[in-house]
Amino acid sequence: MMNELITNFTVIIDFLGTFAFAISGIKLASGKNIDLLGAYLIGLVTAIGGGTIRDLLLDATPFWMLDSRYIIITGMALLAIILLKEKLFKWGNTLFIFDAIGLGLFTIVGISKSYDAGLSIWVCILMGTITGCLGGVMRDVLINEVPLIFRKDIYALTCILGGIIYFICLKLELQGFLPEVIGVLTVIVFRIIAVKFHLKLPVLTSIR
Amino acid sequence: MMNELITNFTVIIDFLGTFAFAISGIKLASGKNIDLLGAYLIGLVTAIGGGTIRDLLLDATPFWMLDSRYIIITGMALLAIILLKEKLFKWGNTLFIFDAIGLGLFTIVGISKSYDAGLSIWVCILMGTITGCLGGVMRDVLINEVPLIFRKDIYALTCILGGIIYFICLKLELQGFLPEVIGVLTVIVFRIIAVKFHLKLPVLTSIR
Amino acid sequence: MMNELITNFTVIIDFLGTFAFAISGIKLASGKNIDLLGAYLIGLVTAIGGGTIRDLLLDATPFWMLDSRYIIITGMALLAIILLKEKLFKWGNTLFIFDAIGLGLFTIVGISKSYDAGLSIWVCILMGTITGCLGGVMRDVLINEVPLIFRKDIYALTCILGGIIYFICLKLELQGFLPEVIGVLTVIVFRIIAVKFHLKLPVLTSIR
Repeated sequence: MMNELITNFTVIIDFLGTFAFAISGIKLASGKNIDLLGAYLIGLVTAIGGGTIRDLLLDATPFWMLDSRYIIITGMALLAIILLKEKLFKWGNTLFIFDAIGLGLFTIVGISKSYDAGLSIWVCILMGTITGCLGGVMRDVLINEVPLIFRKDIYALTCILGGIIYFICLKLELQGFLPEVIGVLTVIVFRIIAVKFHLKLPVLTSIR
Repeated sequence: MMNELITNFTVIIDFLGTFAFAISGIKLASGKNIDLLGAYLIGLVTAIGGGTIRDLLLDATPFWMLDSRYIIITGMALLAIILLKEKLFKWGNTLFIFDAIGLGLFTIVGISKSYDAGLSIWVCILMGTITGCLGGVMRDVLINEVPLIFRKDIYALTCILGGIIYFICLKLELQGFLPEVIGVLTVIVFRIIAVKFHLKLPVLTSIR
Repeated sequence: MMNELITNFTVIIDFLGTFAFAISGIKLASGKNIDLLGAYLIGLVTAIGGGTIRDLLLDATPFWMLDSRYIIITGMALLAIILLKEKLFKWGNTLFIFDAIGLGLFTIVGISKSYDAGLSIWVCILMGTITGCLGGVMRDVLINEVPLIFRKDIYALTCILGGIIYFICLKLELQGFLPEVIGVLTVIVFRIIAVKFHLKLPVLTSIR
């Protein structure tokens, strides 16, 4: 019963995260002379790109190939943007929260899938970062910009931190889903703090 | 006998499509300070990129790894461009037809391979679109431009339409290779119409 | 004993090559408003990107997933750049030699892994080129530039040449590790000659 509840809860969070990731892709594609289908495809890549690379690396069938709802949710994201336009971004904070929740969930799912596959801790943390961040990297490559996560957002670092906390929880032998929940919350909280206080990593100055 | 004929016919179309895709890559690479081998490699990525991603997603061995003729055909495309230069593009219409035929074939092959793998209809159509379009997307990323299919060409939509018609044909229980043939023809005809009448999808205006 | 020595030697060269590739990624990322973690990730992609694609194509587990030392070596490269800065590039020639050695090793490892998998000669040479060059291509895509290997460096050609010499050695039935050693040396020597004498391939002029 409890497990079922948590599974359903995870599915809902997963779809909210997918929706928020798709919105971020479509939003960044807007105003760049990109047509509706192009925007949809960029939204889709943003939403499923990271998990796809994770699954390819793990030699698993990419998750969206077994569940067409990811394709549909991205369509709903495009529809929401077309119908609501600026109004949607009055809910900017809500979307940001979805995005942070999605990032947390994607990262920890990536880490625990990799850990189940027997990979070592640092490789798992890298796999979690890939799951959480690579969709956004692909989005930025497609709209021909240097990926945001390399230059502005504290995004990848959030994933790494969440991963470290997750493994500390495992080490402490916390029971049930506690490590997962704490890992996800770490990502969410740290992400919110980073944006709220405009935290930035130091830039690597030119060495040429 | 009949099947053998169709197989041979498919192989010829496949190679013509590969040639046309390679030409499109090499052509877009020209005049950008890219050297001959670079142009060859961009042509190769254009020709085999989409099918490679499809095969990786399906956990199959990428088709060109089992048949080095794709590597050779791309070399012939480079040779044709070097030897014939502008003359080649007097045959612009012929090349465009090859390209449209290639797009149709690649798309339907991608869809039917995915359908054979037991994937759901919308996932199959996405896989067909990936097969037909991702080579061109990679080409544009490599020459550092926002992919053409996102902003100008009705290209991805053509694949989706061909896919939908293909599945309608399957639903109607058309026999033999009829669904494949009709699917491919749909892509070709719609692609020609789209270019002839300068059809464009509406652009997504800025929502920031 | 001899085999063990060669294995250890290969591991050391592999790590030196990884280090040099990571340095090249981090160096190109510097001065572009990219933060430290972003630079690290670009260095990592440069170092492991080519081999990762090779392993995905061969349906093998990407090498770095089984050995976290690649993640650590890239960290050491970042550290070296931060601590030593310009001083590091007084050793520019040393780094260039590491890079050339890495290129040679990565290429021949890619070719021999592919040959073991039963692929044909030209496909193997392409796989070696992918192993040696794709990390650098990804690096340039991420920093939003047309890949260097397409426009300046004689880089891919070096891999192809090394591959051809390697297969000639196999044909001549040279014993032991001689084909591998000669193949790697060919890449290194040709790479040094190409840079020393500013060799360039002819550019493909505009044909539009």
